Formats: sequence, C-alpha cells, structure tokens
Amino acid sequence: MHRYRTHNCAALRANDVGSIVKLSGWVHSKRDHGGLLFIDLRDHFGITQIVIPANSSLLETIEKIRVESVLCVTGKVVSREGETINPKLPTGEIEIQADNIEILSSAAVLPFQVNGNENYPEDLRLTYRYIDLRRERLHRNILLRSNVISSLRNRMIEQGFTEFQTPILTASSPEGARDFLVPARLHPGKFYALPQAPQQFKQLAMVAGFDRYFQIAPCFRDEAARADRSPGEFYQLDFEMSFVTQEDVFETLEPVMEGIFKEFAPNHKISPAPFERIPYKTAMKEYGSDKPDLRNPLKITDVTSAFDGSDFGLFAKITAEGGEVRAIPAPGAGGKPRSFFDKLNGWAREEKMGGLGYITFDETGAAKGPIAKNLDEARCEAIKQACNLQNGDAVFFVAGKGLEMVKFSGTVRTKIAIELGLIEQNAFRFCWIVDFPMYELNEETGLIDFSHNPFSMPQGGLEALNSQDPLEINAYQYDIVCNGIELSSGAIRNHRPDIMIRAFEIAGYPEEEVEKRFGGMLNAFRYGAPPHGGAAPGVDRIVMLLTDEPNIREVILFPLNQQGEDLMMCAPAPTTPERLKELSLALNLPKVNVKKPENASEANKN
Amino acid sequence: MHRYRTHNCAALRANDVGSIVKLSGWVHSKRDHGGLLFIDLRDHFGITQIVIPANSSLLETIEKIRVESVLCVTGKVVSREGETINPKLPTGEIEIQADNIEILSSAAVLPFQVNGNENYPEDLRLTYRYIDLRRERLHRNILLRSNVISSLRNRMIEQGFTEFQTPILTASSPEGARDFLVPARLHPGKFYALPQAPQQFKQLAMVAGFDRYFQIAPCFRDEAARADRSPGEFYQLDFEMSFVTQEDVFETLEPVMEGIFKEFAPNHKISPAPFERIPYKTAMKEYGSDKPDLRNPLKITDVTSAFDGSDFGLFAKITAEGGEVRAIPAPGAGGKPRSFFDKLNGWAREEKMGGLGYITFDETGAAKGPIAKNLDEARCEAIKQACNLQNGDAVFFVAGKGLEMVKFSGTVRTKIAIELGLIEQNAFRFCWIVDFPMYELNEETGLIDFSHNPFSMPQGGLEALNSQDPLEINAYQYDIVCNGIELSSGAIRNHRPDIMIRAFEIAGYPEEEVEKRFGGMLNAFRYGAPPHGGAAPGVDRIVMLLTDEPNIREVILFPLNQQGEDLMMCAPAPTTPERLKELSLALNLPKVNVKKPENASEANKN
Repeated sequence: MHRYRTHNCAALRANDVGSIVKLSGWVHSKRDHGGLLFIDLRDHFGITQIVIPANSSLLETIEKIRVESVLCVTGKVVSREGETINPKLPTGEIEIQADNIEILSSAAVLPFQVNGNENYPEDLRLTYRYIDLRRERLHRNILLRSNVISSLRNRMIEQGFTEFQTPILTASSPEGARDFLVPARLHPGKFYALPQAPQQFKQLAMVAGFDRYFQIAPCFRDEAARADRSPGEFYQLDFEMSFVTQEDVFETLEPVMEGIFKEFAPNHKISPAPFERIPYKTAMKEYGSDKPDLRNPLKITDVTSAFDGSDFGLFAKITAEGGEVRAIPAPGAGGKPRSFFDKLNGWAREEKMGGLGYITFDETGAAKGPIAKNLDEARCEAIKQACNLQNGDAVFFVAGKGLEMVKFSGTVRTKIAIELGLIEQNAFRFCWIVDFPMYELNEETGLIDFSHNPFSMPQGGLEALNSQDPLEINAYQYDIVCNGIELSSGAIRNHRPDIMIRAFEIAGYPEEEVEKRFGGMLNAFRYGAPPHGGAAPGVDRIVMLLTDEPNIREVILFPLNQQGEDLMMCAPAPTTPERLKELSLALNLPKVNVKKPENASEANKN
Repeated sequence: MHRYRTHNCAALRANDVGSIVKLSGWVHSKRDHGGLLFIDLRDHFGITQIVIPANSSLLETIEKIRVESVLCVTGKVVSREGETINPKLPTGEIEIQADNIEILSSAAVLPFQVNGNENYPEDLRLTYRYIDLRRERLHRNILLRSNVISSLRNRMIEQGFTEFQTPILTASSPEGARDFLVPARLHPGKFYALPQAPQQFKQLAMVAGFDRYFQIAPCFRDEAARADRSPGEFYQLDFEMSFVTQEDVFETLEPVMEGIFKEFAPNHKISPAPFERIPYKTAMKEYGSDKPDLRNPLKITDVTSAFDGSDFGLFAKITAEGGEVRAIPAPGAGGKPRSFFDKLNGWAREEKMGGLGYITFDETGAAKGPIAKNLDEARCEAIKQACNLQNGDAVFFVAGKGLEMVKFSGTVRTKIAIELGLIEQNAFRFCWIVDFPMYELNEETGLIDFSHNPFSMPQGGLEALNSQDPLEINAYQYDIVCNGIELSSGAIRNHRPDIMIRAFEIAGYPEEEVEKRFGGMLNAFRYGAPPHGGAAPGVDRIVMLLTDEPNIREVILFPLNQQGEDLMMCAPAPTTPERLKELSLALNLPKVNVKKPENASEANKN
C-alpha cells in the first residue's frame, strides 16, 4: 500500500465498497454526530467523508486536531444508505470507516476559513494566499487559467506556430510605458530593462525567418494598477506571422478565440468566425466607441439633418455651429412613465452632460415629449425612419461636437440597453475594429501626429504617404474586442525602412531622429525583412471574461496587491548597503517621505 | 491568389508540375548559368529553385539584388530533368519558371554569410543574431529547443501536472546565489528580486493544495557565465508533487526524460526506465564522482588492502597513514607500449597529482611494471581478482586521502576510457544519485554543517535527528544525471516545522535564527502542509545534450554574451538622471573604472 494514498479524495464510488483504501488530504470540516466523528477530507480533486466510530481509539487524537490539518487515513470503504447519501458529492454514496489516521501536518488557528463563502479583506487573503487558494472559487479560477493557457498553446501549435522564449533581461523600449530597470552589477551605471512586451524580439524572429512565432509572454510595465491590469507583470498570447495580410491574421486568431471560449464557456453563445469587421469610423458613429459591446443590440444613428434648422432651438443652434445630433433608440420604451425619462436625464446631468432629450412614439405612432412639441411631424417621422423605430418605441438624443459627443453617445447606448435589460446574457461577442487612421491632428499644436502605432504599415504604402492627405490614410492596424473589452491591438508592421522614414517625416520627425531612436529595428529590416504582422491578446483578460471576475487578482496564482506589494513574500523590501555598493548605486530617497533623518538610514540597514 | 504565397518553399513536388504558384522567401543563392539566372529561394520550411529565362525582362532588376533580399515570385512549376535534379532537396525535382518577381525587401551588404558553414566571431554573430538565426544549424537548434519544451509540457500534463506561472517580480531568496534586484519606484528604497528559481512558490502551491505543479520556469541568477549556464536567465522544468515518496518522483520523471530523449534522439540508445539508483557513497567510490557518466563502462575498486603493509613503499606509507588506494581498470591495455603509460603518467603530473602507477597483466597473466616488481604475486593476483581483470588488461592506481583522491580517481576513470575509446557512442545514460548525507563535518571549524540542502527531509525524520549520529543521517535528496551532467537536484522537502527547527539546531542555528530567516515558509507549513517533493531539470542542458552543443548560446534564441550583454539590443545601457531620481537612486560608480570625471556624467546623460 502506498505511503500516502491509494486513491485521491474524488475517486471512490459505490463499487469500491469493501476495499481497504488510504487517502490523504486536508480536514475540510469535522462534525460530531452522537459520538461518531465525521471528517470531510479534501484534496485537489474532491472530498471524501471519513467516519470514526464512537468506540475508536482514534477519537481522542482526532478530536484535538483543527480543520485544515493534513491527515493520512486508512480504512474500509462502506456504503451510505438513504438520506445519508450526499448527491452533491461524486463520492457521496460512500464513506471511509477509519482504521488508522496519521497526522501529516497539524494546523494552527486559521486567519480565515477555507470552508464557506465568507468575504475577507483582500490584504488578509493576499498575506495568506496559500490558504485562500484552497477555497473553492479561487482554486477553480487558477486551474481554469492554467487550462486556458494550455489550450491556447495547443491551438496555436495546431495553427502552425512555434513557441519561443524571448529575453526577460533586455533593453529599454524606445517608446511606450515605463520600464522596470534592473541594475547590471558587472556594468556599473548600466541597467537592463524588463520587456513591456516582446514586440521587437518577435519582429526580429520574423526577420530571422521563423515564419510563425507565439509565446505566452510575461510582460512588465511599471504603471499604476488598474482593475484589469496587475501592477508589474501580466501575460499575453503574443504572436507574429510572416508573409501575411491583415485578413490572414484574423483568420488565424479567430478559430483560436472561438475555440477557447467554446471550450471553457460551453453554456455561452460565442460569435462564430469570421468575426464582424467594423471600420474605426463606423464603430465610433454606430456604437460611440472603438470597443463596442456587441451583446448590446442598439445602434446609434446620425439625425443631425432632422434637427438642422428646426424649431427645437437648442439642437438647431448646435447643428448651425457645426455640431451633430445622434439618436439612440430605446425599443419598447414609448410607454414608460415620465419618471423613467427624468431618471435618465438626471443621470446625464451627473455625467456632466447637459441632459438627455428624447421623443416617445405612442401605440398609434404619435411623437410625444418636450422635443416633439417643438419638432414638426415630418422631422419626427424622419427620425423614426432613420432609426428604424416602431410604434411604442422611444429615442434619446445626444448633441454636440467632437469626441466628447461621440463617446457620450456610446455611454448612453450602454445605459439604455442596461435599463431596458437588452444586454444579451451568457454570450461572448467578438469583433475586429479595422481601418484605424494612421495620423490625427494634434488639437493643441495643429500639427499631424501618429494616431496609434507609428510602426504599422500605412494602407497604400509609400505611394499613399506620397500622394494622399495624411489624415485620410488608414493603417493596417486593428483591435480585437469581446463584450466591449479590448483583448488586443495588432498590426501589419511596417517592414520597409524607406516607408518608415517617410511615415515619420509626415509626423514631423527628421530622418536622423528616426535613425537615432529606432536604428536597431531599421537596421534589422535592411538585411532582408519579410512582410509580417500579429497581435497579442491579454491572457489575464481572457480568463477574467471566462470566470466573470472583475478583479484581476482573482485569476492570478500569487498576485501583487494594488500597491505593487507581495504581502505573502514581503516584496519589495529594503536591501543591504553591501548589495547597493555592489550594484554601484546609492539610495536617493525623496525628502518628503522622510519624516526623521533616522528613517533613511533605517531603510539602508534592513 | 494569395498576396504573398500559395505554397511555402518546401512544398512543391513533381506532381505540381504545370501549376501556377506564388512563393515568398529569402535569396539563399544566385547563380548565372549561360544567361539563365537561378535563385535558391529559402524560407523557414525549405528551399525551392527559381529560374529566370535568359530573355526575361526580370533579369535586369534581379541581377542587382543581393542575397538575403526577400522576394515574392510568381511562376509555373516545371520539372527538372536528369542531372539537374537535386536529390538533396525535397523540392529537387522541380523548379519555378518566374513570370513575375516582386522585391519585398532588398538586403544591404551582409556582415557575414547565411549560406555556408564558415565560422564567424561570436560577438559579430550576436550583434546580428537575426541574420545568424537564418543559418541552418542555429535555426534547427532553436526549433528543436521549442519542440523539446512543447513535448516536455505535453508529457508533464499527461502525468497529471498542471502548469502555473509564478511571480517574476518577487522577494529576495533567503539563501543561495545572488539575486537580480529591481528598484520599486512606488516604494522608495525598496527592491523586488527576480526569482533564482520558483522554489518557495512551488512549495506554497503544494500547501495551497494544487497536488502536481509544473512550469517551464524562467530563473535568474546574477552570476558569472559558465559554458553550460547563461549569465542572467535560464529555464528549468520545475515540478513539485504532493503526497509522494522519493520513488514516486523518480517514477514520474523517468518516462518524461526517457520519452524526450527517445523522441528527439531517435538514433541514440537511451537508458530505459527505471534508471539506476546509485547511493552517493557508492557513486563516489565506484565512479569517483557524484555525476557519473555511465557511458563509461569502467568501475573503480578499493584495493587498499592489497597495498597495506606491502613492499611497494609509496602506497604502503599512504595506507599506513590512513590513506586509500583505488584501482581503475584499463581493459586490453596490458599490451600497450611503455609510451602509453608514460603519457598517462605525464598527464597525471600536469593535473598536479604525483603520477599514475599501474600494473599490466600479459597474455599469460603475469603482472608487470614498476609497481608489480615491488608487489608479491598474491597481492597482484588479489588486485586482478578484485578488479575483475583478464589476462592482457592493465590497471591504474590512485592513492591518497579524502575528496581530492576520490575526485582524481574519477578523472582517471574518464581519461582512461577516452584513451581506450571505451565511451559508448550515441547513447544517453541516466542515473539517480540518492542518499546524500544530510550533514558533513566542516573541516575548518570542526563543526557540523548541512551538506547540501537544509530544506530536505532527513531520512528517518525527527526520530533520526534525535537518536542518530548526524553524520550518519541521509536526506531524501537526489540528483538526476545524464552522461555525467547533472540535470537537476531534487528532494522530498521537509514540510514539518518541528523537524526543520531540530535539523537546523543540529547545524548550530538557534530556533530564533531559523524563525527570523525562514519564518515565511515555516508559517505556511503551520496551516496544514502536505508531504511534497520535486525536482527541476535544466531545459538548456537537456537541449545542449540533444543538439551536442557545448556552448549554451547555440540553443537560446536571443542570448546574452558571456559578459552579460545583449549586443543586438545594446543592453545593459545607461539610464537618464530623471529615471534614476524617479527610482530614488543615485549612481555610486566605482572609482577605479572612472578615468576622467566627465565619464561619469556622460553615462548619466545617455
């Protein structure tokens, strides 16, 4: 018989009755029933009930041990009868009559309970993460994460990709977020940087001819924590392909994403591939966002012309000044009481917008409400037609100029869908946002800037750069969005030094500057570079969607807290003066944080 | 037709003749044959020959482009005839008659050639790694590495393991090698450390109940480079299991290792599982090493008694003073000329040992040589028997005391096997070294120290610690060795705080000290810890064995050089005064390295 176990705690069934078995696990619970002692013994796999007879010599020992102690139990499998059967447990038809129990590890008083669903302060949970991880939901989340990553790997390999590890001790990125720096002991005064993403390495892997690269890649950004991003490190499904068009990238990633979500959310509706491709401009107009949540069926309509020159003075004035009016339908809301509209108006004011105008259409199709009173019937009917409204529907309006108006129309679209219960439940809806503009006008300087990623290939290549209005040029750049969450940006890269230098020239960077800042990549492209492109969906975000967890720390095994601290391992921590000297560094602590002079030297000493 | 390719450069065969195809790839070579231009077009998958007819309008353009430019070629597949067929290429029966060629990227003059096997200086190769990686051997090594890692993952998952990512920004290890430190911007004066190994995290994963953890884990040590270890980062197959004995760990890893080596070295002989288990003391005695190369058939024999009190004064004196004599057989060397033995004697002197005594046995079994002259026949016969020698064999002797003698006997064993051509070729021979002593005597202090890993479980547990001579206690600690290379240490861990405190007490550490230094782990073990153990075979070493590469940089995609520099990305590099200030740090450069005061501020400016 094995030293610790013949079976795990989820293995035994009715047909094992009569066997002598050995199980090891944690004491999930202990119950005394008329002299009999019942223990739920738990391991990674499940729970098995142990029973210690009233006359057993084991009782005295076991009565003293606390829950979460680790036991090794030998005994006979016996069947449970009638109402003692637990239909909720796969092992619920049997229990183990203990003949021998060895205490492998006895537990102290716990800081919080493993058994049960009580909430505890997050810092306490993070300090004792190894206990928290035994709790069912977190344990399941972390396992799901592992299984998702494993499945992502297999799906990428099936698509012909090879996984490569890129360096973690590397050089600072030429642009982007803030790097973490690592002092190089053997090179006084010099630093490695942790990669914000393996962007340059994956492109160099393409230049090296590897054709299809992927990596479940650790990425590092020294940025403040957000709900959906850990401070410090996060993982992405980083991939890159050679000799591909944008459509090839889409067709490659789609079955991976559809497959993962189908596998791990079998009860959800998943967008079938191909996912909808929505041009950036269309997304902004119809959804008021470049991250549209397609579970929301509402679409926004431009109804500027219906108000232009109308008797509804407020909107007429806005349109006369070059503003626009966008309409957000509210299907079936025509019969809602006045309070419904007042509440939404009040909400809009709280959002620092002037308010939220609306028209309702009654069952006969008559337009009602404060705006309708000042709008002739033809204009009301035009709005109804444009927005494809039915009798009994309502419609809300957002009027104004520029990005603020557009974004608010998107916020209203979301708000109304939530209020009316229109968001599709148990669904994952994907789309690609495409045709991002290459350039935009910097409103402060009046000059042309890159809109998003200066390293994307402009649509039309060098010819477009030389002949078109820069503000009309789109890039081969794209986002993949699921349920309103951006999973990844991506692009067909600019692999041609001549096109890159011209693209930067348009944004006001002279060639010398480009050579100086990005010379490494430019040089690599000068020795024969294939056209290539890719993306990098966030693994943490995918798992958050699948587990429906709004807090990223619920899907990471050992996360830092929001202040970037590991409360369990006590990191970050002071170092010794010897280590600092070895690294050719000295502390230069901010004065504001030093209350007494002693504090600074204390930090040095610990 | 696809924008870039209908096939890759390894796909086309005789039965594709007549098809119109499009290929993209690098110009591997260009040859002019009587006006016809031949191009070998290369991609990740292979090579296809392109032919441009003598009258083609494409000639002018293509003649100008350099090798390693990237082309997109459209044309018709035509068959090659007779001696123009290239049997070395899978595509050697066909070629593409080019109708159209687009230059996707034109290459500058290369720093070295991709095509061919010429050697170039390593720094040049590392600076242009993306070019070097196109060369066949390196390209194949890196792919093999990826495939090995992928197969390791699948094999571990098949064994019931789950892969988890452990933190990279974490706390300093309480012991071991030197950590890399990462300044924590938001916590002035504090630092994260990069993990030397996820040792504590994997043990905490077991305490959290995850049962079987593995990870292809990045590890970081701020140590000087060695041939088999990169400066900076390296990868290990890190794993840990709960409720297991040492034998369980062996039985789990063996099929993984046997499987990997069979898969990737199909023409090699591989030790079948179970691998030989060799106690540490036996290994030192029979192989003169705790990393025995079992491809070497020679075993060392203790022949002290044959010399004790003998007329061979030198060895008799050594044995009289408590020294020992070890015999290393040299099968078939009895008939070797005197020069053979003189050469080995000279080699031993170069190794700073006194020399290398020997006896030869001629075809009649008579003992010959300088030692045999001073040793009576019975003693010579006793040695012959003890070492299982045949007529016509020879035997070498190493005499002395302690570890130096033992290690030299191992060196001689290797030397003789190489000289006699006895090392088994095309074989991977595995063994486990077991029963490492828990403690050893510190020869300087005369006190008891831990031998290897203080966190291993002592054999016999608390009872052994309380009742046995510490120097007689073995630990559940083990190494896995292949062809004389240690792939990993491992252990059944000490999961019991009471046993750990006692174990440290024996080595002279008071309880308070243990609590202070290792309190984090001790505390975790106080809330219910399972017995657990594992190991962490080095991925880089496995790939080096499989590729037969002695230099670790030949099996890493983008390695640092031996000075810890990334010559391609220019890391490490100086940072700005602003970044340093943000990190609450100042440079404290060693004076010896600063030739002029300006240099220091220069470093600051870049």
